[in-house]
Amino acid sequence: MALESILSFFIPKDKKFFVLFEKASKNLVDISRVFNELLNTGAPDRRVELIKTISDLEHVGDNITHEIFTELSTNFITPFDREDIHYLASSLDDIVDYIHGSAKRLQLYKIDEYTLEMQQLAEVIEKSAIEVHAAVSTLKGMQDVVRLKEALVRINSLENQADDIFDGAIAQLFINEKDAIKIIKVKEVLANMETATDKCEDVANVIETILIKNS
Amino acid sequence: MALESILSFFIPKDKKFFVLFEKASKNLVDISRVFNELLNTGAPDRRVELIKTISDLEHVGDNITHEIFTELSTNFITPFDREDIHYLASSLDDIVDYIHGSAKRLQLYKIDEYTLEMQQLAEVIEKSAIEVHAAVSTLKGMQDVVRLKEALVRINSLENQADDIFDGAIAQLFINEKDAIKIIKVKEVLANMETATDKCEDVANVIETILIKNS
Amino acid sequence: MALESILSFFIPKDKKFFVLFEKASKNLVDISRVFNELLNTGAPDRRVELIKTISDLEHVGDNITHEIFTELSTNFITPFDREDIHYLASSLDDIVDYIHGSAKRLQLYKIDEYTLEMQQLAEVIEKSAIEVHAAVSTLKGMQDVVRLKEALVRINSLENQADDIFDGAIAQLFINEKDAIKIIKVKEVLANMETATDKCEDVANVIETILIKNS
Repeated sequence: MALESILSFFIPKDKKFFVLFEKASKNLVDISRVFNELLNTGAPDRRVELIKTISDLEHVGDNITHEIFTELSTNFITPFDREDIHYLASSLDDIVDYIHGSAKRLQLYKIDEYTLEMQQLAEVIEKSAIEVHAAVSTLKGMQDVVRLKEALVRINSLENQADDIFDGAIAQLFINEKDAIKIIKVKEVLANMETATDKCEDVANVIETILIKNS
Repeated sequence: MALESILSFFIPKDKKFFVLFEKASKNLVDISRVFNELLNTGAPDRRVELIKTISDLEHVGDNITHEIFTELSTNFITPFDREDIHYLASSLDDIVDYIHGSAKRLQLYKIDEYTLEMQQLAEVIEKSAIEVHAAVSTLKGMQDVVRLKEALVRINSLENQADDIFDGAIAQLFINEKDAIKIIKVKEVLANMETATDKCEDVANVIETILIKNS
Repeated sequence: MALESILSFFIPKDKKFFVLFEKASKNLVDISRVFNELLNTGAPDRRVELIKTISDLEHVGDNITHEIFTELSTNFITPFDREDIHYLASSLDDIVDYIHGSAKRLQLYKIDEYTLEMQQLAEVIEKSAIEVHAAVSTLKGMQDVVRLKEALVRINSLENQADDIFDGAIAQLFINEKDAIKIIKVKEVLANMETATDKCEDVANVIETILIKNS
């Protein structure tokens, strides 16, 4: 941290945003990986620990978002439009919040058997997070617009996949599950996970806007 | 499409927004009419076809919204404040999304008997959509401020009607229905429909803002 | 009202916002006090009357919000950034809406026995509202930044308290309550109340932004 703040002294003011956005999207990759581990590969006895880690990473994300908003309030010069910076930071924060919200509900509702669709959605979320990080990382200097556009296309396609998984899961849930309380629980977890991918699409949309404005 | 793009060549850049907004609100009228047909007059055997049409019109709406955002990113000159254009486009898109969301849930939850209140809300939504289209169409050149203001008043009054229908429906639902799963399904459809009229009110509010700024 | 509009004639145009924001946050304190009374100290036979008062105060809040937006549309000079004024007004309005939404659901769902956690949340909401009003009142002229910052810290801490109460309440609800319909009702009231405190935090965040920009 000390070294980091010394280094940040040499970064031109408006470049700080790129550093912070990369930090935010890197943190998103981390939380989505732990979440995917929780649902897919993690041993059941690591459950409590993994949910705790997700909670911690959500706090890390909050702090980065706060840093971006502070930078935005103090800097006159920004690398792209202020409202786009605001929207990008909020959307990245939203994705993290919905992942955290999904994990928290698994805990609150004591769901310890995951449905196939929850597991599929956790994978889609991690894949989306990786593409979001790729897109955010290429924003700086717009070095590789082709790669950036590919990432945006993939985020949109992953969101469509998530939609289909969610719709199928909900239809099946109402056919197979007769316990209303279980329906409430499972439906809400699935909805939180699906919304996480919607928020990835919001990130893709604002990055597309930034791209158009700077082309 | 080819003819359209040739024609659009002759439209001054900042006039394009009016064309696009009219397209968006016209599409809203279309989707709300099909949705009202689904709930009120459509023969049961046309159900699948009507829901499919709603889904298609939602995609059409998405593309128009995307076009507006692209115009907004490339045009320096806009006929009214950028944030108002953004908010108007988003709100129009939201209405369409909530209509589509309602239809999708009818399908996912296999609800094929509609309650009276669902039918009433579908009517209110179509009426609101028609007023929204009237308001959006008079925005251009602010030709007929009296008519515009009347449309805004009617949108607000329709939203109040929708509120009352929704509140009554929910109160009755919890009194009459003892099946929790049915409550979950019906409540969510009603909530989506009621939110569609809230979003019509958002459109009315932003148009009022535009009106004040330009008077 | 007549006197008020004569007086407002003498208030410099950009000072009007402070007057309106104080009015909005004062109204928030009022509605939160009535809501807390409804849940904690009010005699059961005053229930209908108290819910009616909450509904009336929500309308009062709507009118103040509308006035702020009208001022914003007609004034070129604003005491702080337009988007911050917009966000502050919307967030104040949101808090009032969620309090009203909670009360309305108590009525619609015929919940007349309040859980301990509902009562605790109503208290937290009133405390938050008082801090929000304190923060908003010191915005004018930034007279007392220390007091302002203390209020912001307290709003954040109250939001954390509300989070913990909500999480505990939901976990307990799913353990103790076997009636799915009751779960739906109680969960939704609690969620509305918890969101009210989230919106208080939104107010704290935008005030912090205003503070940073003006320091």
